[in-house]
Amino acid sequence: MAGKSRIYFDYNASAPLLDDARAAMIAVMDIDANPSSVHAEGRKARAVVKKARRQVAALVNANPDHVVFTSGATEAAALALTPHYSMGRAPVNMSRLYVCAADHPCTLEGGSFRAEDRMLFPVRDNGLVDLPALEQVVALHDHAAGLPLVVCHFANNETGVIQPVDEISRLVKANRGVFVVDAVQAAGRLPIDISTGFADYLILSSHKIGGPKGAGALVAFSDLLMPMPLIRGGGQERGHRSGTESPVNLAGFGQAAEHALNSMDEWQDVAHLRDQLEEGIREVAPTSVFYAQGEKRLPNTIFFSLPGMKAETLQIALDLDGFATSPGSACSSGKVGASHVLAAMGVQSGEGAIRLSLGLGNSAADVSDFLQKFAKIAERAASGE
Amino acid sequence: MAGKSRIYFDYNASAPLLDDARAAMIAVMDIDANPSSVHAEGRKARAVVKKARRQVAALVNANPDHVVFTSGATEAAALALTPHYSMGRAPVNMSRLYVCAADHPCTLEGGSFRAEDRMLFPVRDNGLVDLPALEQVVALHDHAAGLPLVVCHFANNETGVIQPVDEISRLVKANRGVFVVDAVQAAGRLPIDISTGFADYLILSSHKIGGPKGAGALVAFSDLLMPMPLIRGGGQERGHRSGTESPVNLAGFGQAAEHALNSMDEWQDVAHLRDQLEEGIREVAPTSVFYAQGEKRLPNTIFFSLPGMKAETLQIALDLDGFATSPGSACSSGKVGASHVLAAMGVQSGEGAIRLSLGLGNSAADVSDFLQKFAKIAERAASGE
Repeated sequence: MAGKSRIYFDYNASAPLLDDARAAMIAVMDIDANPSSVHAEGRKARAVVKKARRQVAALVNANPDHVVFTSGATEAAALALTPHYSMGRAPVNMSRLYVCAADHPCTLEGGSFRAEDRMLFPVRDNGLVDLPALEQVVALHDHAAGLPLVVCHFANNETGVIQPVDEISRLVKANRGVFVVDAVQAAGRLPIDISTGFADYLILSSHKIGGPKGAGALVAFSDLLMPMPLIRGGGQERGHRSGTESPVNLAGFGQAAEHALNSMDEWQDVAHLRDQLEEGIREVAPTSVFYAQGEKRLPNTIFFSLPGMKAETLQIALDLDGFATSPGSACSSGKVGASHVLAAMGVQSGEGAIRLSLGLGNSAADVSDFLQKFAKIAERAASGE
Repeated sequence: MAGKSRIYFDYNASAPLLDDARAAMIAVMDIDANPSSVHAEGRKARAVVKKARRQVAALVNANPDHVVFTSGATEAAALALTPHYSMGRAPVNMSRLYVCAADHPCTLEGGSFRAEDRMLFPVRDNGLVDLPALEQVVALHDHAAGLPLVVCHFANNETGVIQPVDEISRLVKANRGVFVVDAVQAAGRLPIDISTGFADYLILSSHKIGGPKGAGALVAFSDLLMPMPLIRGGGQERGHRSGTESPVNLAGFGQAAEHALNSMDEWQDVAHLRDQLEEGIREVAPTSVFYAQGEKRLPNTIFFSLPGMKAETLQIALDLDGFATSPGSACSSGKVGASHVLAAMGVQSGEGAIRLSLGLGNSAADVSDFLQKFAKIAERAASGE
């Protein structure tokens, strides 16, 4: 991006690399060795990984020994969403996976569960999990076959809506289930404390909090019960995930986690910008439809439809005007599909919806610049051009 | 590493990051976006991934569309070593996995095959695959249950011995098998041409060729028959491997691959240094035992035992003297085990063996420096101190 000639409103797809994360990465590029090597160089590499483990653990108040680094959130989801767990040497079977219908594709795909062993649970029209419906579904679980594994996002990547994870957790525990929380969008933006035991496992992503792409973690509340490894070999990550660790990626992830923990307050400013943006859009285009409004949402996300203009068209117009925004989520090679989140909410939106997701790098000038350009686009849309 | 105060002889565990790979990584750190995003920033990120794909494909003369990027070789092995393949929408079953007994743990662990569906095939005392034994084993394969999947390393990470992959390939094909070649140690040091069809799949690692840790690939000869995805979600890598790609890591991997392809000739100089080192060790400690001698080996690897001194003790002494070397392979958190490669060769070495693995960054001064220090250590060993 050539400075401010472009404005980035797509933090939920990927946050720009933070300066201090970048510096942390470059600082360890000269550590040549394999963190598993026993020589001095190897020990240095190992120390980098250890520091990152402490930093990432601190972001969610976890025990550093319960952090399993992966190549990203999608791999962490694939690791967690397996029928095969173990408690020490004893195998523990998860006989059915219950997935929130508004989850990200990385959990919606159901990991290694067979299609017949997966079940969706619904959200309401405001995007929040339908608790009575979930309770009904989980209460029918056949415990003779194994445990129920429940997965849900903490905050939605498209609408930004924040799920009642504590209530979901109580419901899952009451039915002797195991609860995996996809905290990718919530981490670094909302306080998360796994030490309360609300989640058995958290899924984290480095690049959504300003760290590099190519790192993530599965963080466990306790390491008594763990999923069988998805990737086996040299026995890294205490045997839970093999493969040579990347000190460069992990140094960046760790630094981003530390940065996020120390700048949690600044999201109030982002919320203020977001509100200005929302009001401005409403003024310019009063018929705009905003989703999951009135519910607790991430401080940075707006998801809306502009009647008379397809979301894809709006995204392209904004792109040409210098704004990076997203029609729905960015999940595979440049493909734009209908929003499965809106579908799960029972919302019919012929035009689709567009997501603006802000971050600590945005300013009031970005917002006014956007509103100026948006007004012209909305005018064209209204006049049917 | 503080310049030449330390000398690095552990390239088989991990090669130092090449200057041009490092520069390529830093150059794309400002591309903030998700390569799946449809806006200008996303397209830039996508272009970085595309370039890397071409560069990595070129190293092994593959079709760029047949490169599936992963987080490393271990993940690539986990992807390939599954009973579940598909040809388009038709499932294809691999009913048994045949693994070389001297393979790296990432393939030895057998991926997602059940223990009862895995079988080792032996190497001889020189470290080379015992072809008649392999033939016998594969000829007995029960084709009614599915296809035989055979995996073997191209060059051994501990001894450096180069396997007769073309002969193994003919044998596998004659028995209607599928052949996966772990080319991690061979890539960039030996010419590899997958277009000949000798392998159905190659496993590659970025950090063994001077790229960053955290990147690897499974390269297919053809994409007609592909393993079912290990990591599912957003459908990246043409659906074969989901998860946001890391343009930074892949830019470094791609650049390292291009560098390796252009500097293949320089390994002759490394071979010369290696020979000097070997002669020097033999002069200083004539009773030293060198493994896989007399066979075709990688140009950079020496694997030997010093009678009267445990390999671990020798490694520590060398570490204190400023040399990074490895007792066997570096495969999990600082753990040193007996060499399973020597065991597979039927070699009994009470002392264990030490590996010196050189790279393009080493010089004649490194070799003479080593021999000087090594002479003193060997003297102490001989005198029983």
